[in-house]
Amino acid sequence: MTQDKCLVDIHTHVYLPEYLELLRQREKVPRVLPPLEEGEDERLIILPDEDKGESTKNGRPVGPDYYDVREKLAFMDKHDIDISVISLANPWIDFLPPTEETFDLARRLNVSMEKMCQDPITHGRLYGMGTLPLSSVEGSIAEVERIAALPRMRGVIMGTFGCGKGLDDPALEPLYQAIAKHNLVIFLHPHYGVNLPASGNTDAGHSLALALGFPFETTYAIARLILSGIFDRVPDLKILLAHSGGTLPFLAGRIDSCVAHDPAVASKLNHPPSYYLKKLYYDAVIYHETGVKATAAFVDPSQMMFGTDHPFFPPLETKDARWMSVDSNLSAISNAGLDSSTVEGILGKNALRIFNLELPSK
Amino acid sequence: MTQDKCLVDIHTHVYLPEYLELLRQREKVPRVLPPLEEGEDERLIILPDEDKGESTKNGRPVGPDYYDVREKLAFMDKHDIDISVISLANPWIDFLPPTEETFDLARRLNVSMEKMCQDPITHGRLYGMGTLPLSSVEGSIAEVERIAALPRMRGVIMGTFGCGKGLDDPALEPLYQAIAKHNLVIFLHPHYGVNLPASGNTDAGHSLALALGFPFETTYAIARLILSGIFDRVPDLKILLAHSGGTLPFLAGRIDSCVAHDPAVASKLNHPPSYYLKKLYYDAVIYHETGVKATAAFVDPSQMMFGTDHPFFPPLETKDARWMSVDSNLSAISNAGLDSSTVEGILGKNALRIFNLELPSK
Repeated sequence: MTQDKCLVDIHTHVYLPEYLELLRQREKVPRVLPPLEEGEDERLIILPDEDKGESTKNGRPVGPDYYDVREKLAFMDKHDIDISVISLANPWIDFLPPTEETFDLARRLNVSMEKMCQDPITHGRLYGMGTLPLSSVEGSIAEVERIAALPRMRGVIMGTFGCGKGLDDPALEPLYQAIAKHNLVIFLHPHYGVNLPASGNTDAGHSLALALGFPFETTYAIARLILSGIFDRVPDLKILLAHSGGTLPFLAGRIDSCVAHDPAVASKLNHPPSYYLKKLYYDAVIYHETGVKATAAFVDPSQMMFGTDHPFFPPLETKDARWMSVDSNLSAISNAGLDSSTVEGILGKNALRIFNLELPSK
Repeated sequence: MTQDKCLVDIHTHVYLPEYLELLRQREKVPRVLPPLEEGEDERLIILPDEDKGESTKNGRPVGPDYYDVREKLAFMDKHDIDISVISLANPWIDFLPPTEETFDLARRLNVSMEKMCQDPITHGRLYGMGTLPLSSVEGSIAEVERIAALPRMRGVIMGTFGCGKGLDDPALEPLYQAIAKHNLVIFLHPHYGVNLPASGNTDAGHSLALALGFPFETTYAIARLILSGIFDRVPDLKILLAHSGGTLPFLAGRIDSCVAHDPAVASKLNHPPSYYLKKLYYDAVIYHETGVKATAAFVDPSQMMFGTDHPFFPPLETKDARWMSVDSNLSAISNAGLDSSTVEGILGKNALRIFNLELPSK
């Protein structure tokens, strides 16, 4: 293997022991419940109202894929992934109050993440994203300083909640400045969904909440952030958008048009919204060629990076098969009509450059 | 001009006199208010809660563009549009109760639409979409029969409300069968938006409700409709999606993946959701090349058709300029890297074929 052919997964989650312990102690969602039967896995309920739906109330089994670094490495081996940039899964610790206890937990989570990345059995194949105690901007800025000093950390993962008022909350601006100053990347990931009208007639389980609510949430939060003018004030802010930006590459033209026709909104920005959208990074977790083609048509494909969303969307059939969700993302990249050097970039080289990763020797 | 080079606008609205009169009489949204100053235009407030927003509460001026067939023709001449397939604007008459009075209004609206299309000054350049009294399935089926008998009608325009329970309401199935039997096309158009979380910090006017709420609504409603299995039961149902399908061409892969990973949902369908999505028609009202490229990569581009959304998104500068909103859609189609015969199809020939339109001799 040369550096020209590497596979880097920048969208892959882990449930650290400290986080599972927190979720076990909780009495409302997000929470981890005991096994339904003895000898089975614990169960994770994370999405809002998931505990209320007939088909979702029992949650997902929390297998070793969720927390065991050896399972992460086995998954990487199975799919020829050289490096993974791991991050805590949603909803992180957004729901905790701004207390010393929360700050301490963030600190322990990040140290634990760093330790996992430094575990000798990983042979340098893991890097990490930090977690912030977002209910406090001050606490988060302090944690950013600590994360920046951890050798294998490359960014921070964030939802769209901010301190409770969304990403365009002016109170967050010092945090964005601190993140930009340390050259960390924000990995922006949905969790809360968008309040879709009652499903009424169709029992779609949580398939539509995941398929649509997640990308709608990312789209709306980033559109608001852009309209706040943050990128005119903090132009160096680097944001990686989950799921190829939700729907932003597709809707950018409509957003530009609607903003241009509302001069009171347009006049607050130095550029049309798509100008800022074209500066962001996009994962390639979109599961079909059209999505990759659209994203690569919208932004410079050197800003796109492969991801898996592991441990979610495991194979339905056998435990040993390659994961369909991974293969659909890989084949979408290969079959999007891009030249081989662009494909190599999306698969790994872009991530090496953007996150300053070192490819371990084999 | 030959039939190879024609421009057909299949997304263009008109406020018929009977509809304006209805909106004038109403005391809540949607409604038409008197001019703010004598000699000015009346004002239209259509979107939910638009009357409550500081920047939107005064509505849009209802100029002759909204109702005068001569203005429609002048707009068409200005942009070299040969044929327009006109439709009533949202929210149609969804909000009226299932009474004889409502059925009679639907009938009068459709006769009025047909009459406008037959007006000698149009020289055969207009075709129409009918309006249904959707609060009653029976009343709507009866109206479909009448619309099918009107010589210049080619379809029906519908929102996502159905009879109040969405498009996947089983009660609507006989209506879908009647529409399919008469070979009419449903023009599916958003109105209600999606309940986006409070905008909080960013005063975006209604720019994001239009830019995002509209396409999210279309996406969610059609995803639900597909999961209901309607296209397995009424495979001949023809639906044209406004705004290039909202976000469906971009999200189809994620929808397939999320549905496949929820076997209880997947097992109700004969095919993955994208199979059905690829059978629908898509307008090309998406305002940038990426949107056209993505839609053309997702569906056979012979299912795509040019549109303008007239009289909305008028030019901001002078009254005489070509409309930026129209030109951005035209240049998106021209610059999407499609071959000339594909472009000609999207600009007009597809609409001639799909709607069985006759190009007037000049």
